Amino acid sequence: MFFKAHEIVKGISEGSLTAISVLQKCFENINSDENEIQAWVCLDRDGASDRAKMLDSMRKSGKAIGPLHGVPVGIKDIVDTVNLPTSFGSSIFTDRKPTSPARIIELLEMAGAIVVGKTVTTEFAFMNPSKTKNPINKEYSPGGSSSGSASAVAAGHVPIAIGSQTNGSVIRPASFCGVYAIKPSSGIIPRTGVFETSKTLDQMGIFANCLEDLAIVNDVLSDYDSRDASCRPVPRPSLTEMITDPPPIEPKFVWLSLEYLDNLDNAVKDGFLQIREILGDKIEIVDAKEATKRLVATHKTIHEYQLLENLEPINKENPGKMNKLILGALERAQSISSNDVSLALEIRKEAQNFFESLFLDYDAIITPSALSEPPLLKEKSTGNPVCCTIWTLCGLPCFNIPLLTGENGLPIGVQLVGKFEEDDRLIRTAKWLQKYLTDAVSAQKTS
Amino acid sequence: MFFKAHEIVKGISEGSLTAISVLQKCFENINSDENEIQAWVCLDRDGASDRAKMLDSMRKSGKAIGPLHGVPVGIKDIVDTVNLPTSFGSSIFTDRKPTSPARIIELLEMAGAIVVGKTVTTEFAFMNPSKTKNPINKEYSPGGSSSGSASAVAAGHVPIAIGSQTNGSVIRPASFCGVYAIKPSSGIIPRTGVFETSKTLDQMGIFANCLEDLAIVNDVLSDYDSRDASCRPVPRPSLTEMITDPPPIEPKFVWLSLEYLDNLDNAVKDGFLQIREILGDKIEIVDAKEATKRLVATHKTIHEYQLLENLEPINKENPGKMNKLILGALERAQSISSNDVSLALEIRKEAQNFFESLFLDYDAIITPSALSEPPLLKEKSTGNPVCCTIWTLCGLPCFNIPLLTGENGLPIGVQLVGKFEEDDRLIRTAKWLQKYLTDAVSAQKTS
Repeated sequence: MFFKAHEIVKGISEGSLTAISVLQKCFENINSDENEIQAWVCLDRDGASDRAKMLDSMRKSGKAIGPLHGVPVGIKDIVDTVNLPTSFGSSIFTDRKPTSPARIIELLEMAGAIVVGKTVTTEFAFMNPSKTKNPINKEYSPGGSSSGSASAVAAGHVPIAIGSQTNGSVIRPASFCGVYAIKPSSGIIPRTGVFETSKTLDQMGIFANCLEDLAIVNDVLSDYDSRDASCRPVPRPSLTEMITDPPPIEPKFVWLSLEYLDNLDNAVKDGFLQIREILGDKIEIVDAKEATKRLVATHKTIHEYQLLENLEPINKENPGKMNKLILGALERAQSISSNDVSLALEIRKEAQNFFESLFLDYDAIITPSALSEPPLLKEKSTGNPVCCTIWTLCGLPCFNIPLLTGENGLPIGVQLVGKFEEDDRLIRTAKWLQKYLTDAVSAQKTS
Repeated sequence: MFFKAHEIVKGISEGSLTAISVLQKCFENINSDENEIQAWVCLDRDGASDRAKMLDSMRKSGKAIGPLHGVPVGIKDIVDTVNLPTSFGSSIFTDRKPTSPARIIELLEMAGAIVVGKTVTTEFAFMNPSKTKNPINKEYSPGGSSSGSASAVAAGHVPIAIGSQTNGSVIRPASFCGVYAIKPSSGIIPRTGVFETSKTLDQMGIFANCLEDLAIVNDVLSDYDSRDASCRPVPRPSLTEMITDPPPIEPKFVWLSLEYLDNLDNAVKDGFLQIREILGDKIEIVDAKEATKRLVATHKTIHEYQLLENLEPINKENPGKMNKLILGALERAQSISSNDVSLALEIRKEAQNFFESLFLDYDAIITPSALSEPPLLKEKSTGNPVCCTIWTLCGLPCFNIPLLTGENGLPIGVQLVGKFEEDDRLIRTAKWLQKYLTDAVSAQKTS
């Protein structure tokens, strides 16, 4: 059973559902297969039940109904919560108990959401695989680093889960697990109270079962918090308002030729050829190899340098406690100079200007969310994040739409990338695209 | 010229106004009479202009338009701002420069508002008159402690100003200056970064030129911030949604007989007799003298005890710098025991239960916002706050609606008080009442 948040809120508002019954169903679903999937670090069964009852009594007494009233949510375990420990996927921080919640927890609670538990993250949100399995086929990886959040939504444990992305940690696991996801423009969702791996690159993201739910949760989490230096004191796009509007004219898409796309696996390649065929003259091809050639390396420079800033003090105090992938990155980062980073930030700025211009001509980039279906667990990899690297570097808004299926019957995500801080227009375009492609496919089937 | 915030946003959104032109008009209005009115402690002309231009360029480039996009706002000088000093109306803190903004400043900026300057507060938001005059007649007091905020809106300097109320510091000056105001239920608007005089009683409030504007600003400022212990992690009422709904059935009002209303001046008494006559069987009279008899004293116990907690350390470090009214309160507070306060908090809880029951039968209490028209400046008083004391004590939502006029041609406010955390229903009732009374009066005139 795949809950949708907006259906839950409607049901509770109309009186056909209660928050406590929805929560019980979630726990039933979790109980049924969590032993195999292992999406959760910990659950707050009692706290969540108490809160569900309180929300039901608010509704009964005629008090305000929030936009996520009674919606159970899973939270990546790098986000501070007061009722549950926050351990960053690291044995160093087992049972770490923050005394105040992350800003996004406050925002979720003000919207009436119920934090059900903490979802598995890879260690410090880096690349080493976690224990979590892909619910669609338990032989496969759910991706990383927001492994548990993607899995928990795909398994029907919760309708909504929160993750974060420094490279491809939201869009890639969403692609692998076949769920919807958004990583909004950088600075839209505050990171106060979230473990920092890179102040330039870390961005929050959301997993759900439909675009409507992403819109609601995105708007709930959109906030200006001056404690987060990436936040600007300006109005946020409203996705819930824009998703119901049809685009004023048919949107125009662009397929960028990019170096790393040479490594697309065949099923992904075929899927996108089909999509481009259906879109016909609504999509153009632009060669961006030259404009983007240094960007993956640029991302790596910034990421590893800032990872060193954030993790080296912890590593020094707790020698031998981090995994080899992190230690390798920290080792490499020692040779990155602050000049290298300044240069990298300049290259990033140029790339942001390139995309600012590109989006004068196009509404969205269509591109794969991952190079392939998810890897087998035995490959001991969370998959290649490269399909997300450039957009994360530039802070552009991205959606994963689970539209395609690969040779092994596992999902392949279509990624839509939009103009900075125009996340509202991007969801309108995403909604249009989803309908257009679905209609085209059913027309093909019936003809 | 009396700006309305929602008209400004509409104009900017449609392109018939720009944020910079609105701001210039505000500064013209301020320049024209600020020397006499003295509503402002300081203004940020350059910063506000830069921000207006930035908001105009956002609008031009198609980025999001906030619910207060381009709306100039005045902020009571007990609210921390980064661009302007925050001095609490005290010579001790002249040029105090906070390094981070109050939460409500972040919320206003995220909505697209422009902080124009800091408005005059009485010293530490207590009772001693400030330098500010009443714009309607400069011989009279604007009330206190949010003197500058009420005056700035009444004078047409800004369409919106923010104040705070520990006893009657929003509703009373709104009544005296003839503007609309709301003091929402306690805990709806976070006080993080606002000077604390009483953790139990301090509540934020808003001044504007219509109910619609109060709804917009209230919803912008509604927030759960765990740093403020009065905030609960639950959904906030949405006033903008509810204000457009007609009440499902005609609202029912109650007039409470209260001891202090024996001191109403004649013009106020007459005005309310007229209102009660017009409302006919829609209003009932309930004798609440017994249920409320200890509440004014209870408020005083809590207020002065907590004032001592907050001001005595400052007083000790800065002897001889506070005015006599504050020093008198601090002196009295020395003899209040923590037991007295525990008892006071119990009495408060009982009173909250009394009102919780009362509002099962009625939609709103109708009551005066002040005992009389504003006092003359030469009386050296900000007026009696007693008409607000009980509601502030219990944290109930209150509106001031400027409907009546007294013998001296100065305004008398109608106060509506509603059920705790049902501020949304109260604004719907307020909207209904305003129309009903206005229609009745014009029918009388034409007949």
